Amino acid sequence: MRIDGLQYANWSEKIFRQLREGQVDAIHVTIAYHENFRETVLNFEKWNRWFEQYPDLIMKGQCASDIDVARETSRTAVFFGFQNPSPIEDDIGLVEILHTLGARFMQLTYNNQSLLATGCYEVEDTGLTRMGKQVVKEMNRVGLVVDMSHSADRSTIEAAEYSDRPIAITHANPHRWHPARRNKSDDVIRAVTQNCGMLGFSVYPHHLKDKTDCTLESFCEMIARTADKFGVDHLGIGTDLCQDQPDSVVEWMRVGRWTKKIDYGEGSASDAGFPPMPEWFQDNRHFDNIEDGLRQVGMNEAEVAGVMGQNWYRFFSENFGPHP
Amino acid sequence: MRIDGLQYANWSEKIFRQLREGQVDAIHVTIAYHENFRETVLNFEKWNRWFEQYPDLIMKGQCASDIDVARETSRTAVFFGFQNPSPIEDDIGLVEILHTLGARFMQLTYNNQSLLATGCYEVEDTGLTRMGKQVVKEMNRVGLVVDMSHSADRSTIEAAEYSDRPIAITHANPHRWHPARRNKSDDVIRAVTQNCGMLGFSVYPHHLKDKTDCTLESFCEMIARTADKFGVDHLGIGTDLCQDQPDSVVEWMRVGRWTKKIDYGEGSASDAGFPPMPEWFQDNRHFDNIEDGLRQVGMNEAEVAGVMGQNWYRFFSENFGPHP
Repeated sequence: MRIDGLQYANWSEKIFRQLREGQVDAIHVTIAYHENFRETVLNFEKWNRWFEQYPDLIMKGQCASDIDVARETSRTAVFFGFQNPSPIEDDIGLVEILHTLGARFMQLTYNNQSLLATGCYEVEDTGLTRMGKQVVKEMNRVGLVVDMSHSADRSTIEAAEYSDRPIAITHANPHRWHPARRNKSDDVIRAVTQNCGMLGFSVYPHHLKDKTDCTLESFCEMIARTADKFGVDHLGIGTDLCQDQPDSVVEWMRVGRWTKKIDYGEGSASDAGFPPMPEWFQDNRHFDNIEDGLRQVGMNEAEVAGVMGQNWYRFFSENFGPHP
Repeated sequence: MRIDGLQYANWSEKIFRQLREGQVDAIHVTIAYHENFRETVLNFEKWNRWFEQYPDLIMKGQCASDIDVARETSRTAVFFGFQNPSPIEDDIGLVEILHTLGARFMQLTYNNQSLLATGCYEVEDTGLTRMGKQVVKEMNRVGLVVDMSHSADRSTIEAAEYSDRPIAITHANPHRWHPARRNKSDDVIRAVTQNCGMLGFSVYPHHLKDKTDCTLESFCEMIARTADKFGVDHLGIGTDLCQDQPDSVVEWMRVGRWTKKIDYGEGSASDAGFPPMPEWFQDNRHFDNIEDGLRQVGMNEAEVAGVMGQNWYRFFSENFGPHP
């Protein structure tokens, strides 16, 4: 079973076919960065059209059993998420509305301070806000997973502790391996995984040691060491693949409508666009490379199967419905 | 089994308890008159809070089998509908979005011309518009029932013919019995029922012969004669009960935001508010009266059971899912 914990591609029939070639059973796709509620609904509508147009390749995913249906019918189940809480605006009632529409992950922050928590680019991290605490409990109630990939450390640890249910970092790597601002300290990874939360390993070059030149061996060795330290059951893949996106999209991701200036985020003035992906992971047809790489660094078949999809499957099955 | 094909009460714990006392297994409730998409979402949110607050009395209804669950657990299943297409604005993609949120009926017009068809108060009835035809097919595809209660005759007949699936008039009576503008001609009732559509009989006084003074016998006799003419299987109840609403609400229903003047709709300057309900149907505890009344005018048990709920149940079971 193969599940990718995060992608934000410029979707097309070509990519849907590559998902099938790569035997990807399920993906979590981002459908909002800075979109407000109405704009996010337009993105749900766009996916509804794709589901209608490509019924043999993709299907909407709402619960883990949809992945079984997808596998039986050779399709990819698509689960929705937001990288920012902008879709709920200032209205806690939109948490359930958006879950009903199919949202299954929501980041409490995207780099900046939000109404809910602090992002990883702010100077001060004040943890969960008043509204943030209320929204975490509401997300727990309906089964919308708290994702802290772009959040600051204190906010992440508080969210992991305050949440009644496991949370996720869908796409990041350990800071110890590559000290990027978006990568996570041991304390953060421990807080998330010790409560049965998940860490999805990113292949986005800014999160990789040696960036685009990162070797497959280094990436897989890092996964194996993280498994030694935090337990393999809490680990999956979250490639952060942004295939076929123009550079205007990475600018939207970084800048949204919150500034009139340019913000380069993980990039820089001289390296402002999407970085080229490593040669061993260009698109969805390359999951074999990661799977083989994990074997090469000594992980056994059960461990490899867990990281490649079964851990996400178990997490989906426990966290996408109403709180038991 | 008891199902009411339309209510628009000022909902409260009192009314939810009266639904249980009246053994009402399911109701279709209006959650939009002139609301745009975002305002309609707020109304879904309001109901989500009520479902959370009164889990022993009510539950959200999405398909006919939810009525079975409601009966087994002594609750009332609440199905949502709109009396106007204002919630979809000018965006056909919102049809599926709103169906996903739980909408199961949508009127193509409320008294006035809409983007989709002509309402019963317009001078000219031009039938389904270009967008109207597209939206009817989309409603057919997802399982959102076309309701023509407030539409003009030609529009209604065209909708019944153009739709691939049965349509409904959730709340109106035969024009022949009481010639109100909102009541329906034989041609309209025939067009709807001959395609397996449904007519729900209204207890709203403006739709009743002698209005508030209408006798139970006259109402039930009218139902029995309609059954003789069009077949009992296509008939149900749609009380149009607007319990505990202040008169400001009937003004909102009539005026919305489309005029700066007062429009009295079915009322008049001297009779502008909600009319008093007949003494034999004051609230949900009075369905017994209608059931007994139908027996009194000679309907047999199967016919009575059909009109009181089983016909709506069958209709719900066939029309609330994706087109087979």
